[in-house]
Amino acid sequence: ADAEAGKAKAAVCAACHGQDGIATIPMYPNLAGQNAAYIISALTAYKNKTRTGGQAVVMHGQAAGLSEADMANLAAYYASLKPGGK
Amino acid sequence: ADAEAGKAKAAVCAACHGQDGIATIPMYPNLAGQNAAYIISALTAYKNKTRTGGQAVVMHGQAAGLSEADMANLAAYYASLKPGGK
Repeated sequence: ADAEAGKAKAAVCAACHGQDGIATIPMYPNLAGQNAAYIISALTAYKNKTRTGGQAVVMHGQAAGLSEADMANLAAYYASLKPGGK
Repeated sequence: ADAEAGKAKAAVCAACHGQDGIATIPMYPNLAGQNAAYIISALTAYKNKTRTGGQAVVMHGQAAGLSEADMANLAAYYASLKPGGK
Protein backbone atom coordinates (compact mmCIF):
# COMPACT_ATOMS: atom_id res chain seq x y z
CA ALA A 1 0.00 0.00 0.00
CA ASP A 2 1.08 3.61 -0.63
CA ALA A 3 0.61 5.85 2.40
CA GLU A 4 1.56 8.95 0.37
CA ALA A 5 -1.24 8.23 -2.12
CA GLY A 6 -3.44 7.60 0.90
CA LYS A 7 -2.55 11.01 2.32
CA ALA A 8 -3.67 12.69 -0.92
CA LYS A 9 -6.87 10.66 -0.93
CA ALA A 10 -7.50 11.56 2.72
CA ALA A 11 -7.91 15.27 1.99
CA VAL A 12 -11.70 14.87 1.93
CA CYS A 13 -11.67 12.69 5.07
CA ALA A 14 -9.87 15.34 7.11
CA ALA A 15 -13.05 17.42 7.39
CA CYS A 16 -14.41 14.94 9.94
CA HIS A 17 -11.41 12.80 10.90
CA GLY A 18 -9.04 15.76 11.33
CA GLN A 19 -5.76 16.74 9.64
CA ASP A 20 -3.84 14.47 12.03
CA GLY A 21 -6.45 11.71 12.22
CA ILE A 22 -8.04 13.06 15.41
CA ALA A 23 -11.75 13.54 14.77
CA THR A 24 -13.09 17.09 14.72
CA ILE A 25 -16.37 15.87 16.28
CA PRO A 26 -16.45 13.35 19.20
CA MET A 27 -19.20 11.43 17.41
CA TYR A 28 -16.63 10.39 14.77
CA PRO A 29 -13.72 8.04 15.38
CA ASN A 30 -10.11 9.04 15.67
CA LEU A 31 -8.18 7.17 12.97
CA ALA A 32 -4.59 8.08 13.88
CA GLY A 33 -2.65 4.87 14.57
CA GLN A 34 -5.66 2.66 13.94
CA ASN A 35 -4.95 -0.84 12.54
CA ALA A 36 -4.83 -0.80 8.73
CA ALA A 37 -6.59 -4.18 8.42
CA TYR A 38 -9.46 -2.86 10.55
CA ILE A 39 -9.75 0.36 8.53
CA ILE A 40 -9.99 -1.70 5.33
CA SER A 41 -12.64 -3.92 6.93
CA ALA A 42 -14.66 -0.88 8.04
CA LEU A 43 -14.39 0.92 4.69
CA THR A 44 -15.47 -2.27 2.93
CA ALA A 45 -18.48 -2.59 5.23
CA TYR A 46 -19.44 1.02 4.50
CA LYS A 47 -19.00 0.52 0.75
CA ASN A 48 -21.10 -2.67 0.87
CA LYS A 49 -23.56 -0.92 3.19
CA THR A 50 -23.37 -3.78 5.69
CA ARG A 51 -22.71 -1.06 8.25
CA THR A 52 -25.76 1.12 8.74
CA GLY A 53 -27.14 3.02 11.69
CA GLY A 54 -25.79 6.13 13.40
CA GLN A 55 -23.56 8.19 11.14
CA ALA A 56 -22.89 5.25 8.82
CA VAL A 57 -24.94 6.79 6.01
CA VAL A 58 -22.37 9.60 5.76
CA MET A 59 -19.66 6.99 5.20
CA HIS A 60 -21.71 5.14 2.55
CA GLY A 61 -21.28 8.16 0.29
CA GLN A 62 -17.59 8.50 1.11
CA ALA A 63 -16.73 4.83 0.64
CA ALA A 64 -18.82 4.29 -2.49
CA GLY A 65 -16.15 5.72 -4.79
CA LEU A 66 -13.18 3.99 -3.19
CA SER A 67 -11.31 1.18 -4.95
CA GLU A 68 -9.59 -1.56 -2.95
CA ALA A 69 -6.27 0.19 -3.69
CA ASP A 70 -7.66 3.49 -2.36
CA MET A 71 -8.78 1.71 0.80
CA ALA A 72 -5.38 0.06 1.29
CA ASN A 73 -3.61 3.40 0.77
CA LEU A 74 -5.94 5.29 3.13
CA ALA A 75 -5.53 2.54 5.73
CA ALA A 76 -1.73 2.65 5.43
CA TYR A 77 -1.79 6.44 5.77
CA TYR A 78 -3.96 6.56 8.90
CA ALA A 79 -2.15 3.62 10.50
CA SER A 80 1.08 5.60 10.03
CA LEU A 81 -0.19 8.63 11.96
CA LYS A 82 0.87 9.09 15.58
CA PRO A 83 -1.82 7.71 17.91
CA GLY A 84 -3.40 10.64 19.71
CA GLY A 85 -2.34 13.00 16.96
CA LYS A 86 0.31 15.73 16.48
CA ALA B 1 -20.04 7.68 33.18
CA ASP B 2 -17.84 5.56 35.45
CA ALA B 3 -14.55 4.57 33.83
CA GLU B 4 -13.69 2.29 36.79
CA ALA B 5 -16.90 0.31 36.28
CA GLY B 6 -16.02 0.34 32.58
CA LYS B 7 -12.61 -1.14 33.33
CA ALA B 8 -14.23 -4.03 35.21
CA LYS B 9 -16.72 -4.56 32.39
CA ALA B 10 -13.87 -4.48 29.83
CA ALA B 11 -12.23 -7.64 31.19
CA VAL B 12 -13.95 -9.70 28.49
CA CYS B 13 -13.12 -7.15 25.78
CA ALA B 14 -9.40 -7.30 26.50
CA ALA B 15 -9.12 -10.69 24.79
CA CYS B 16 -9.41 -8.96 21.40
CA HIS B 17 -8.94 -5.27 22.16
CA GLY B 18 -5.93 -5.81 24.46
CA GLN B 19 -5.23 -4.98 28.12
CA ASP B 20 -4.25 -1.43 27.15
CA GLY B 21 -6.81 -1.01 24.37
CA ILE B 22 -4.38 -1.98 21.60
CA ALA B 23 -5.94 -4.82 19.61
CA THR B 24 -4.29 -8.22 19.85
CA ILE B 25 -5.20 -8.89 16.19
CA PRO B 26 -4.76 -6.22 13.44
CA MET B 27 -8.22 -7.08 12.13
CA TYR B 28 -9.73 -5.56 15.29
CA PRO B 29 -9.66 -1.87 16.17
CA ASN B 30 -7.48 -0.27 18.78
CA LEU B 31 -9.77 1.44 21.29
CA ALA B 32 -7.23 3.30 23.44
CA GLY B 33 -8.00 7.03 23.33
CA GLN B 34 -10.93 6.56 20.98
CA ASN B 35 -13.80 9.09 21.30
CA ALA B 36 -16.37 7.96 23.89
CA ALA B 37 -19.33 9.20 21.85
CA TYR B 38 -18.11 7.14 18.87
CA ILE B 39 -17.64 4.01 20.99
CA ILE B 40 -21.21 4.35 22.30
CA SER B 41 -22.48 4.82 18.74
CA ALA B 42 -20.59 1.72 17.55
CA LEU B 43 -21.69 -0.46 20.50
CA THR B 44 -25.28 0.64 19.92
CA ALA B 45 -25.02 -0.29 16.24
CA TYR B 46 -23.65 -3.71 17.17
CA LYS B 47 -26.39 -4.24 19.79
CA ASN B 48 -29.07 -3.20 17.26
CA LYS B 49 -27.32 -5.27 14.60
CA THR B 50 -27.28 -2.32 12.21
CA ARG B 51 -23.59 -3.08 11.83
CA THR B 52 -23.06 -6.38 10.08
CA GLY B 53 -20.39 -7.72 7.76
CA GLY B 54 -16.78 -8.59 8.56
CA GLN B 55 -16.20 -9.40 12.20
CA ALA B 56 -19.38 -7.58 13.27
CA VAL B 57 -21.12 -10.83 14.19
CA VAL B 58 -18.58 -11.32 16.98
CA MET B 59 -19.57 -7.94 18.42
CA HIS B 60 -23.30 -8.69 18.17
CA GLY B 61 -22.84 -11.29 20.90
CA GLN B 62 -20.67 -9.01 22.99
CA ALA B 63 -22.94 -5.98 22.76
CA ALA B 64 -26.22 -7.86 23.20
CA GLY B 65 -25.90 -7.94 26.99
CA LEU B 66 -24.75 -4.35 27.46
CA SER B 67 -26.99 -1.71 29.02
CA GLU B 68 -26.68 1.95 28.05
CA ALA B 69 -24.85 2.52 31.36
CA ASP B 70 -22.42 -0.31 30.55
CA MET B 71 -21.77 1.25 27.15
CA ALA B 72 -21.16 4.69 28.66
CA ASN B 73 -18.79 3.23 31.27
CA LEU B 74 -16.88 1.15 28.70
CA ALA B 75 -16.63 4.19 26.42
CA ALA B 76 -15.33 6.37 29.27
CA TYR B 77 -12.78 3.70 30.17
CA TYR B 78 -11.37 3.23 26.66
CA ALA B 79 -11.39 6.97 25.94
CA SER B 80 -9.27 7.40 29.09
CA LEU B 81 -6.54 5.02 27.90
CA LYS B 82 -3.36 6.46 26.41
CA PRO B 83 -3.61 6.51 22.59
CA GLY B 84 -1.15 3.98 21.23
CA GLY B 85 -1.19 2.09 24.53
CA LYS B 86 1.23 1.63 27.48
